[in-house]
Amino acid sequence: MRMYDCISKKKSGFALSKEEIKFLVDGYTLGEIPDYQMSAFLMAVCLKGMTEEETLSLTMAMAESGDILDLSAIHGCKADKHSTGGVGDKTTLVVAPMVAALKVPVAKMSGRGLGHTGGTIDKLESFPGFRTALTQEEFFSQVNRIGLAVMAQTANLAPADKKIYALRDVTATVDSMPLIASSIMSKKLAAGASVIVLDVKSGSGAFMKTLEDSVALAKQMVDLGNGAGRKTYAVVTDMNQPLGNNIGNILEVKEAIDALNGCGPEDLMDASCTLAAQMLVGAGKAASFDEGYQMAEGTIKDGSAFEKFCEFIEAQGGDAAYAREPQKFPTAPIKFPVKASASGYISSMDTEQIGLASLVLGAGREKKEDKIDPAAGIQMCIKIGDFVEAGQIIAVLYTSEEKKAVAARDRLLPAITISKEQVVPAKHVLAILE
Amino acid sequence: MRMYDCISKKKSGFALSKEEIKFLVDGYTLGEIPDYQMSAFLMAVCLKGMTEEETLSLTMAMAESGDILDLSAIHGCKADKHSTGGVGDKTTLVVAPMVAALKVPVAKMSGRGLGHTGGTIDKLESFPGFRTALTQEEFFSQVNRIGLAVMAQTANLAPADKKIYALRDVTATVDSMPLIASSIMSKKLAAGASVIVLDVKSGSGAFMKTLEDSVALAKQMVDLGNGAGRKTYAVVTDMNQPLGNNIGNILEVKEAIDALNGCGPEDLMDASCTLAAQMLVGAGKAASFDEGYQMAEGTIKDGSAFEKFCEFIEAQGGDAAYAREPQKFPTAPIKFPVKASASGYISSMDTEQIGLASLVLGAGREKKEDKIDPAAGIQMCIKIGDFVEAGQIIAVLYTSEEKKAVAARDRLLPAITISKEQVVPAKHVLAILE
Repeated sequence: MRMYDCISKKKSGFALSKEEIKFLVDGYTLGEIPDYQMSAFLMAVCLKGMTEEETLSLTMAMAESGDILDLSAIHGCKADKHSTGGVGDKTTLVVAPMVAALKVPVAKMSGRGLGHTGGTIDKLESFPGFRTALTQEEFFSQVNRIGLAVMAQTANLAPADKKIYALRDVTATVDSMPLIASSIMSKKLAAGASVIVLDVKSGSGAFMKTLEDSVALAKQMVDLGNGAGRKTYAVVTDMNQPLGNNIGNILEVKEAIDALNGCGPEDLMDASCTLAAQMLVGAGKAASFDEGYQMAEGTIKDGSAFEKFCEFIEAQGGDAAYAREPQKFPTAPIKFPVKASASGYISSMDTEQIGLASLVLGAGREKKEDKIDPAAGIQMCIKIGDFVEAGQIIAVLYTSEEKKAVAARDRLLPAITISKEQVVPAKHVLAILE
Repeated sequence: MRMYDCISKKKSGFALSKEEIKFLVDGYTLGEIPDYQMSAFLMAVCLKGMTEEETLSLTMAMAESGDILDLSAIHGCKADKHSTGGVGDKTTLVVAPMVAALKVPVAKMSGRGLGHTGGTIDKLESFPGFRTALTQEEFFSQVNRIGLAVMAQTANLAPADKKIYALRDVTATVDSMPLIASSIMSKKLAAGASVIVLDVKSGSGAFMKTLEDSVALAKQMVDLGNGAGRKTYAVVTDMNQPLGNNIGNILEVKEAIDALNGCGPEDLMDASCTLAAQMLVGAGKAASFDEGYQMAEGTIKDGSAFEKFCEFIEAQGGDAAYAREPQKFPTAPIKFPVKASASGYISSMDTEQIGLASLVLGAGREKKEDKIDPAAGIQMCIKIGDFVEAGQIIAVLYTSEEKKAVAARDRLLPAITISKEQVVPAKHVLAILE
């Protein structure tokens, strides 16, 4: 088998066999196939596509390129939840305790990503004492004991995907549906859960800008997961504005705590109950989506989700007093109000720009080495459809330096469109795929 | 300017500006742009194409990446002839003395290529004493004195093309019309002639298999040459069977000498007069193609082309006695007849396979380091349309070892199809583009 022939075949629009895909993924991971051949191949995939069968072969080959976690030491049907990435997305902090409270074990291995804010790991580290560097034994035993654990990724999950993604990133070959779907799913499959619920974001703050593309990506990933023998579901949610009101690590933790106490913003509550419902259905705890949704809501009403959250924080060495009294969290020295420049209805937001404003404030990482400021971020005071008066505060920026606040404001203001016409806001949950 | 953006733009089907193309060609040649970005770009070009303007920009950027020969020290309108490569192609040996005899100077710089037989340089070196390592001064002064010189390439012509071609060769990005056209034309433009006549081969022994593709490539190259301010013409010739009867260095020299003496095979005579006619028209020596054709034929009839050839061989230190008495050339120790396996009409040939058979015999180079056996090759005894009896000799193989002859025969025989139906052979010159 020769890489040259694989490139040539894909260039001519033919489908590659499972063996050919395995050959090229393994060869590239081992360094036997050079970058320049792989990038030519990836460009051919971008322009000629891949069949469902090819995409599944690619996903499996990348998943099998490293460790495949064996979660069999954990009792019960393990469920995992993955978001394709959005601004203000703190649903994991709400969903995981919900389903754990209902006895569906959540064993989550999380990486530290780049982005507008830190990842789940960074957010949890806002709790003094919280440890994410668990051993596999501690991790499994905690899940068996309390139903929930989150650890920093140590296993070598899908190294082929890591290497291929790095190449795609510098060769303009990121935006290919089969490449995106297989990249996400290879890591999810390697992470070992038997039920996978995907939160596919759609809109100005998401990778997929249109509902059509988001649904297509969601469908492809559901097919891949099911094709690999995992029960897979997807929810497509709106990212034409940030999720909830808060963006930034401590700010998001506080909002998640509010939600767990039944006082969260409507979109966050709906997203969390929807994702939890799918996990419950997948794990066989709920007979239908509606039943699962009500069960999830129930864990908020009866306080069991919040109690599970506190138990989880304590189990990993964190101080749960911060969850019970969130005012204990440090706040940023500078709170900088941003005011509406005109009166009218909030008609649209460039959510990606809002995310970048949060990065400017210090809430996220641009490079792996960057340190996050846990108190930095944005509190949005408006949602699409709201009426504002000129001069009204529409957001508060939290940061350590005035100049960062000014730079962030200059990015934030043009990202929010105010219109004279009344605007009907979109629903948050746009589609559910099973 | 960023290479990433150039890749992305081409992937999305947009045309790149002249500046962008210059940036990426220069950056790649200097090693500032890595192979993996260039190969992704080249694949995008293969699948999305290039406009005429982009192709001209690419051609110019590659031509300007190294030396551009200045032929102004040579008097008159310098004409160059280039073949896209075929089996048994010895036209340069006939055409160059024809036009030189008519006072159109030919200053040819030639490389030693890979292929079924050696290049023009290798063929000329069959003459004992012939020197191809001329200084530029010797080269110019010889052209001014006798109108014709051929030297081994010393100048750094189109190094960008060389580097890009090597990458295309291993990334399945060779077969793109704009990339092929710009690769050929960048070298021709750098070689400095003001009149360029292209011989574009078409058929089973050529890169372009169909007449349609060959004409399209020819047209694109003519446009590129004219766009760069050179008078450019193209002739599309048939490569569904070898040109003439002989393949191999000394065998081809002998056939060229026959042609210069008026005894060449019809297709070689027609090809040579056609190419010479275009060069004469381009150089302003003939008012029309027909006039040029007759003038070229005239140099055969009056012996002036043959005399110019002998003068040229002597000027470069070669022994012209070999031209006057070709039986002086050494012959291969083994002459191995290949016989028809059935009776019928020769209906088609896989010319590429015939070329490979000649390589097996020792006539060509697979790798740069390979040594050529000047006496090795094939003498074909048939043309498409000929009737043969089973057992009749259809080719004679010239080589140094019996086992090479057997291997070559096993490649040659299946490459020749014998049919019961009568077949009308195609004309050799298929199209002329001005």
